[in-house]
Amino acid sequence: MRFLTFKKDGDFKLGLKSDEQVVDVQAASNQLGMEVPCTYDALVKGGVGDLSEWERLIEGALESPECCHNEEDQEFGPAVINPHKVICVGLNYREHAVEAGMEIPNEPVLFNKFNNSIAAPGQDIDITGLARVDYEAELAFVMGEETRRVSVENALDKVFGYCTSNDISERELQFRSGQWLLGKALDGFLPIGPYLVTADEVPDPQNLSIRGWLNGEIRQDSNTSDMIFTVAEIISYISEYITLEPGDVVITGTPPGVIMGREDKAWMTEGDSYTVEIGNLGKLSNTMCSGA
Amino acid sequence: MRFLTFKKDGDFKLGLKSDEQVVDVQAASNQLGMEVPCTYDALVKGGVGDLSEWERLIEGALESPECCHNEEDQEFGPAVINPHKVICVGLNYREHAVEAGMEIPNEPVLFNKFNNSIAAPGQDIDITGLARVDYEAELAFVMGEETRRVSVENALDKVFGYCTSNDISERELQFRSGQWLLGKALDGFLPIGPYLVTADEVPDPQNLSIRGWLNGEIRQDSNTSDMIFTVAEIISYISEYITLEPGDVVITGTPPGVIMGREDKAWMTEGDSYTVEIGNLGKLSNTMCSGA
Repeated sequence: MRFLTFKKDGDFKLGLKSDEQVVDVQAASNQLGMEVPCTYDALVKGGVGDLSEWERLIEGALESPECCHNEEDQEFGPAVINPHKVICVGLNYREHAVEAGMEIPNEPVLFNKFNNSIAAPGQDIDITGLARVDYEAELAFVMGEETRRVSVENALDKVFGYCTSNDISERELQFRSGQWLLGKALDGFLPIGPYLVTADEVPDPQNLSIRGWLNGEIRQDSNTSDMIFTVAEIISYISEYITLEPGDVVITGTPPGVIMGREDKAWMTEGDSYTVEIGNLGKLSNTMCSGA
Repeated sequence: MRFLTFKKDGDFKLGLKSDEQVVDVQAASNQLGMEVPCTYDALVKGGVGDLSEWERLIEGALESPECCHNEEDQEFGPAVINPHKVICVGLNYREHAVEAGMEIPNEPVLFNKFNNSIAAPGQDIDITGLARVDYEAELAFVMGEETRRVSVENALDKVFGYCTSNDISERELQFRSGQWLLGKALDGFLPIGPYLVTADEVPDPQNLSIRGWLNGEIRQDSNTSDMIFTVAEIISYISEYITLEPGDVVITGTPPGVIMGREDKAWMTEGDSYTVEIGNLGKLSNTMCSGA
């Protein structure tokens, strides 16, 4: 299933993608008298449950035009809403560590963002006054269960789903103090979406193409098979120390091709747009702006 | 006012301290027919409002024994509940930077914890398998308003209140990757409380004694006047990049005296207890345990 959020009545509602249609989950559930989680929170905390129920919901909804919207007419929200944690893994592709001039890590390098960074697909990202803005295509995943000290073998069972994300970074702020938070956690610096794709549709998260384009020019082109630490290893490692909760978001590091690693150091400026596409997870585009 | 949370019916309820009594805010509000915020969330998001209303509530409650409890009989919860952000300032006392073998920073060094770290006064802290556990007495503050790009002059107006906290740290994990998160964000590694003292009772947050005792032996003894970056400067600096929300917690760095800076490097082990007292904010004690 591909969940999403879309704007309706001033709020972000839970949607479910079916071909070109967005099913309004709350409306369809009411219309069809089906008991499914109708909000993002309920979905992520309660689990996706029986997939055939969702298929029934889609089928029923497609016969009730008031429950469906054309995808292109919708204003998408972020694929995740209000996670308690946003944990980021740094330097998780060998060639990216090299281009960043950093050592290849022996253990996952963890830092963070907060809720204020989360942005929607298509949302303009305000970079007013920022000099060294860079992109980072990244596979994100969302936890589906409370997880503490899970083995690598069992870790993927704890994942609710996967998303496309862009770990936008301001390099001067990132390296100002040694602690990366400030250059990572700016408002709007984590566009994520358009879809939260449930784990059953991503049988192997270590075999997804991951690509990024700056204004249409390909800049990152890799595969999640090149990660140093796999999704399962990352979950097991974090959960040794930190209890993960349903809804927590982890982003898994970027492949080579970022501006920081280029000779030209032509940082993103107003009007630049970065597009990320990861496997079957959907395409995410955001344009930098100023004075928003 | 000194707010707190206390355990009742399996949940943490909002309390208000009056001498030796804890007023159950919800019960008193019902009993007296007064409209005040009755949950931690409502209080922090809505603001403390008219202080004389709270005084009336206390007066009325003291005449209704069912609304009051003896403080010593209560199980306290953390002074803060579910903040979206926990931002930490590192190396914010000159002598602590020296003892840590770090440079004295020119700008605030920011890192983070998450909700899973928040612990109650008196709560045992599980340090199973951790070799280098250290204490850090720290002044915490809680934001009372959405804050973006505030000047240093106006920054203190945005603070809801102040708390005593202990930024427990595991030094091997902290320095393993260069990014401090892992050694800071462990479960239970931010005891905070017992009180959330409203800003009106802390007219000058840069003139508070800050002390810490390991098993009764004084280890940290300083004053918040020794901070390199003041509370107002910290707020203004963060809010230049990151929108702060009501309820966000910031901890402001520790004075010298931590184990990391001592010759003996006798890290905390099971049974060790650290007590922090800051100005008029109340005393916070927690004991390390294993196998919890």
